[in-house]
Amino acid sequence: MTQGTAASQSDCFYVLLMAGGRGERFWPLSRRDTPKHLLPLWNGRSLLQLAVERVAPVVPRERILVITTVGQAPKVRRQLGDLPAGNVIVEPVGRDTCAAVTLGAALVGARCPDAVMAMLPADHIIHDVQAFGTVLRDALLLAAREPVIVTLGIPPTEPATGYGYIRVGEPRTSGPADLPGGTRFYNAEAFVEKPSLDRAREYLQSGRYRWNAGMFIWSYATLLEGLREHQPRMHEAALRWAETARTRPSRLRAVLAHEYPELPRISIDYALMEKARNVVVADATFDWDDVGSWTALARHLPAGENGNVFEAEAVAVDSSGNLVYDARSRGTRTPVALVGMQDTVVVLTRDAVLLVHKSQAQKVRELVRKLEEDPRYRKLL
Amino acid sequence: MTQGTAASQSDCFYVLLMAGGRGERFWPLSRRDTPKHLLPLWNGRSLLQLAVERVAPVVPRERILVITTVGQAPKVRRQLGDLPAGNVIVEPVGRDTCAAVTLGAALVGARCPDAVMAMLPADHIIHDVQAFGTVLRDALLLAAREPVIVTLGIPPTEPATGYGYIRVGEPRTSGPADLPGGTRFYNAEAFVEKPSLDRAREYLQSGRYRWNAGMFIWSYATLLEGLREHQPRMHEAALRWAETARTRPSRLRAVLAHEYPELPRISIDYALMEKARNVVVADATFDWDDVGSWTALARHLPAGENGNVFEAEAVAVDSSGNLVYDARSRGTRTPVALVGMQDTVVVLTRDAVLLVHKSQAQKVRELVRKLEEDPRYRKLL
Repeated sequence: MTQGTAASQSDCFYVLLMAGGRGERFWPLSRRDTPKHLLPLWNGRSLLQLAVERVAPVVPRERILVITTVGQAPKVRRQLGDLPAGNVIVEPVGRDTCAAVTLGAALVGARCPDAVMAMLPADHIIHDVQAFGTVLRDALLLAAREPVIVTLGIPPTEPATGYGYIRVGEPRTSGPADLPGGTRFYNAEAFVEKPSLDRAREYLQSGRYRWNAGMFIWSYATLLEGLREHQPRMHEAALRWAETARTRPSRLRAVLAHEYPELPRISIDYALMEKARNVVVADATFDWDDVGSWTALARHLPAGENGNVFEAEAVAVDSSGNLVYDARSRGTRTPVALVGMQDTVVVLTRDAVLLVHKSQAQKVRELVRKLEEDPRYRKLL
Repeated sequence: MTQGTAASQSDCFYVLLMAGGRGERFWPLSRRDTPKHLLPLWNGRSLLQLAVERVAPVVPRERILVITTVGQAPKVRRQLGDLPAGNVIVEPVGRDTCAAVTLGAALVGARCPDAVMAMLPADHIIHDVQAFGTVLRDALLLAAREPVIVTLGIPPTEPATGYGYIRVGEPRTSGPADLPGGTRFYNAEAFVEKPSLDRAREYLQSGRYRWNAGMFIWSYATLLEGLREHQPRMHEAALRWAETARTRPSRLRAVLAHEYPELPRISIDYALMEKARNVVVADATFDWDDVGSWTALARHLPAGENGNVFEAEAVAVDSSGNLVYDARSRGTRTPVALVGMQDTVVVLTRDAVLLVHKSQAQKVRELVRKLEEDPRYRKLL
């Protein structure tokens, strides 16, 4: 396996944004074809658009690719009009993250076999864009220089039970040419599942655990090597698709339509990260939130009096900590009045109303399950 | 003062339904011109319609009169199409209950100077219609026989702090011709204001207190005598209006437009009941609720799973004790989803949405105050 120099490799740095989420937790605003990362919640911008803006200082737009679903592709293209049309990659069907990573990497490898790429979720919030860029650049440089899989680990700020964790070992000593951003790297010792609260508290105290944010950086060569060892079917698919993309690009769509549905449904964490022995953790120096629920989202919107967030025409009496989000078109909005309401999320769309207590926001998924079971509600999904 | 026999008097029994409430507590369903008693919440019937049905077995429709406001009169007439048009009495302006009682009594007195009448609120719920009819009939018969003011007292079932109370003395021994319904009567000792919780508990335990339900029965002669002694201006007005109604009915409207606004704003409780020494309490043997809030209303609507009342297309996950009421027209209704919501009232109308925690339902009035202060919301009142 050859690794180029940092200088030459930076021409071959790529970012692959994973934009294929199902959009359940933000129902009724999010729908199957308009999941969280496509919602224009942030001054009219979506998390996907913010993700592109966030990586653009590190990697030019020509080398930012997005992997999405058939249903979401039209909206993705519309939101990312400044990306080359060919940079929106459409999965024929959903096959979990390992297949998506394999496809994205193959298409990058077809463009540049020396590529170093970051696979990043498109639906997270990071406010400190500059710190993020610094760590990402260092991670790309390290992955260009050494045959390692880099993952950005988030130092926990609370005993969260909703994330996977990574246990880190000793800090790595950098090579002679130090990385410009000064990012700290550790060898990863283990990937661990979502913990109990007690376990999460131990993790937080020990200082040896990081949240797994699903952000991975590797060279094409290193990824291929990892797949060859741990997921040979994916490895063969990657080689085949890269070859097709390079030599007969017009056939790629048909090949994928045929082969992609045959791949196993498996996450990249389980398929590769938990098995690989060359994983390195870059310490995130930036804030991070995967905005996993309406409650999480409310924390990022500007609150007014009594901690209420009103993205609506709302009137409140003795109410605090609420989020009211009216997504109906301007002419059809009506005032929303709250009396004695605490910590409640209210969402109004053209065709549905949701009320959820903030402490129960993760159960919106159960609600969507329930709606899926009833044919009357198919139009709401 | 002459009192006829029960037999002759029953041809002159009248009921006056007081239907002039302001309609604040059931906002956004109730509005200034569509208060609680006009809302078709009870299988499409309103409390006013139920009130008429409740008294109709005791007093024929020709002798059921309704006193209402200018704004509500058209809806009252529409809902009570089976009442003679002249039986809907319109107050020129609101002047509290003593003026309304005086007006209603004068118009009844003009029809029949020997009349015995019941003044009843039109916005209460009574399920046991038969028991109510029995007590009402006995009260009318007693008021026909003796110069007493009868009020129906509700034996308290809880230490309510939202009602006025009446302290009762010894049971009255009936005269030789016993009343057919066997209703128990007491001499009233005192009318007392809404008590503290501790005081209300004492009242409940003592067995000597009744809730003041605002239901009064008297003969025209007895009422005139009471007004003459305690409210001479009202007494004069009653005599004048009765005379006008009898001799120059076409002039009545102009006379009222001129004189009614000049009357003092005073409640019949304060003006007469608390001062009179001839008040008798009839023990109610029926259930009674003045449905003072959304929370009270929810108790009378049929609940489904987990105590939720859904007068709407609603889907619930881990939610209990809620009321969802969708009053929008059929074509514009949308499903309402609840996740982790407890004891919350949700009301949707064409032009507003209300969320109120059941424990805070009395604060809907504060909300209406707030809306009144903002010109933008005038259309919502």
